[in-house]
Amino acid sequence: MILTVTLNAAMDVTYGVDLLEPGETHRIKDVHTQAGGKGLNVARVLHAFGHEVMVTGLAGGPTGEAVRADLAAAGLLEHLVSIAGTSRRTVTIVDPSAATGLHEPGPRISAAEWGGFCAAYEKLAVRASVVVLSGSLPPGLRTDAYAELIRLAPGARSIVDAEGSPLQAALAAHPDVVKANRMELIVTTGKYRPLAAAASLREQGARAVIGTLGDQGLLALTPDGDWQAGLEIPLDGNPTGAGDACVAALAAGLAHRTPWPTLLVEAVAVAGAAVVCPVAGAVDLEAYRRLRAEVVVKELDAHADR
Amino acid sequence: MILTVTLNAAMDVTYGVDLLEPGETHRIKDVHTQAGGKGLNVARVLHAFGHEVMVTGLAGGPTGEAVRADLAAAGLLEHLVSIAGTSRRTVTIVDPSAATGLHEPGPRISAAEWGGFCAAYEKLAVRASVVVLSGSLPPGLRTDAYAELIRLAPGARSIVDAEGSPLQAALAAHPDVVKANRMELIVTTGKYRPLAAAASLREQGARAVIGTLGDQGLLALTPDGDWQAGLEIPLDGNPTGAGDACVAALAAGLAHRTPWPTLLVEAVAVAGAAVVCPVAGAVDLEAYRRLRAEVVVKELDAHADR
Repeated sequence: MILTVTLNAAMDVTYGVDLLEPGETHRIKDVHTQAGGKGLNVARVLHAFGHEVMVTGLAGGPTGEAVRADLAAAGLLEHLVSIAGTSRRTVTIVDPSAATGLHEPGPRISAAEWGGFCAAYEKLAVRASVVVLSGSLPPGLRTDAYAELIRLAPGARSIVDAEGSPLQAALAAHPDVVKANRMELIVTTGKYRPLAAAASLREQGARAVIGTLGDQGLLALTPDGDWQAGLEIPLDGNPTGAGDACVAALAAGLAHRTPWPTLLVEAVAVAGAAVVCPVAGAVDLEAYRRLRAEVVVKELDAHADR
Repeated sequence: MILTVTLNAAMDVTYGVDLLEPGETHRIKDVHTQAGGKGLNVARVLHAFGHEVMVTGLAGGPTGEAVRADLAAAGLLEHLVSIAGTSRRTVTIVDPSAATGLHEPGPRISAAEWGGFCAAYEKLAVRASVVVLSGSLPPGLRTDAYAELIRLAPGARSIVDAEGSPLQAALAAHPDVVKANRMELIVTTGKYRPLAAAASLREQGARAVIGTLGDQGLLALTPDGDWQAGLEIPLDGNPTGAGDACVAALAAGLAHRTPWPTLLVEAVAVAGAAVVCPVAGAVDLEAYRRLRAEVVVKELDAHADR
């Protein structure tokens, strides 16, 4: 079983408008809501591919109830731990020219609530082959929350998809895989070149680092070798959710102990299958099958200038 | 008891941002939520002034639960009728230069739900001296919903604060008072001059019409005479909620059978007490007491050019 952790679960609300005009009142015709937070999207993709997956994290208040109801409707098993505060919402206003985001900070988590979560998580993690730790931390948690969760799951392999100080602090617990996009690599390491940033994360404790570089594909620095993987022809579509889809493929690969070059083919194809889908957390299974044949994996020169 | 009706209750969410930038993602630090819909704000003001008030309307889903919880926290008695759909949210993004609104349409109400509401409302209305019918109608209701509610409360005086076809249709049931602002007068009657528009609403069935004209105060066409009431010096502040405060004063005046000139002094002072308060539904009781002495009421010339 793959266990995905979402400490700052959200209801993601999308409003479609003809044009967002600051200072005006807009009557919304098109409202889309879906439980969100990176870990939930990872779980959706794993579920779509038929993997056994369990969702945990923190949820509270009416928004937390809405998150639970949405996961149940999607057929996802959840063991979210209740908190006193109300889970956050994110609002995205989409007009034909742009998407404008408004992200609430999320409820403050007390020390007692964190202790309760850790106890519940530890029990779930015993049954997990892989734990996936994704997204921002809600207010009130220490920045080393992900490090603690890695240590509480000694029998599982671990993936961290985060940035800044929560990622930095997680490195000390030696996560099996760190997934970061170009901006997250820069923000966390202060290094502008992806290869140098990824190498720095490995030096600080990550066993493997996967950099997701958009149209330039994936960069993988692993104990078994270093690779670049991607498509020859970039895909058109919605890159939102491609990172979460990539993490889902990495989790499935770790669970099945897939060799890295094969796993990278999977990761590129699954991420691509999300790009061609307009909804976050959704994948086009037919596109996935087609793309698998099109992924090119190249071993990186060990002496390349980093 | 004054009964306020909110058929399209909402959770009003306000996000404070430094600057709303279309196309960007904003991390919100300041989230304010409050149960909303005009009828709820009218009830808040009546409650602040110590009047006995009851809230009814339609509420459903997690947002409906949040509305109920917020009313309970404010000490307001509610008898909201449950619906299968989820009550709407409104989002207002406030930056130093502007307030940008995003209003969800609200859930679709079935014929059975409307029938259930009417039965519950009829029982509550027997105990009411005044019924206040405020705001937009949710999808699925007939435009004559307010006319039906006036007819179901034959023992109570009625106030309608609406616009367009729901207001137009309500006139046939002879509401005791129609409250409309300048834009609502125009939209509903097609007449640009407030006096002509208000006269038209009376001709179509309203017993009295109160036009709220911002800094120019109130226009009142009533069976007892026609008046203009206002302050000599306009107030600085937030006009949001002033209309609901005015309706609250009108409801209290109808309940106590206050003569119109005295009632108009109250209505201007209570509306002013809302203008000087930054939060919708809140009033500054000290400002109210001060403003009462400053309201000027003038009888309109019966032969004025309308």
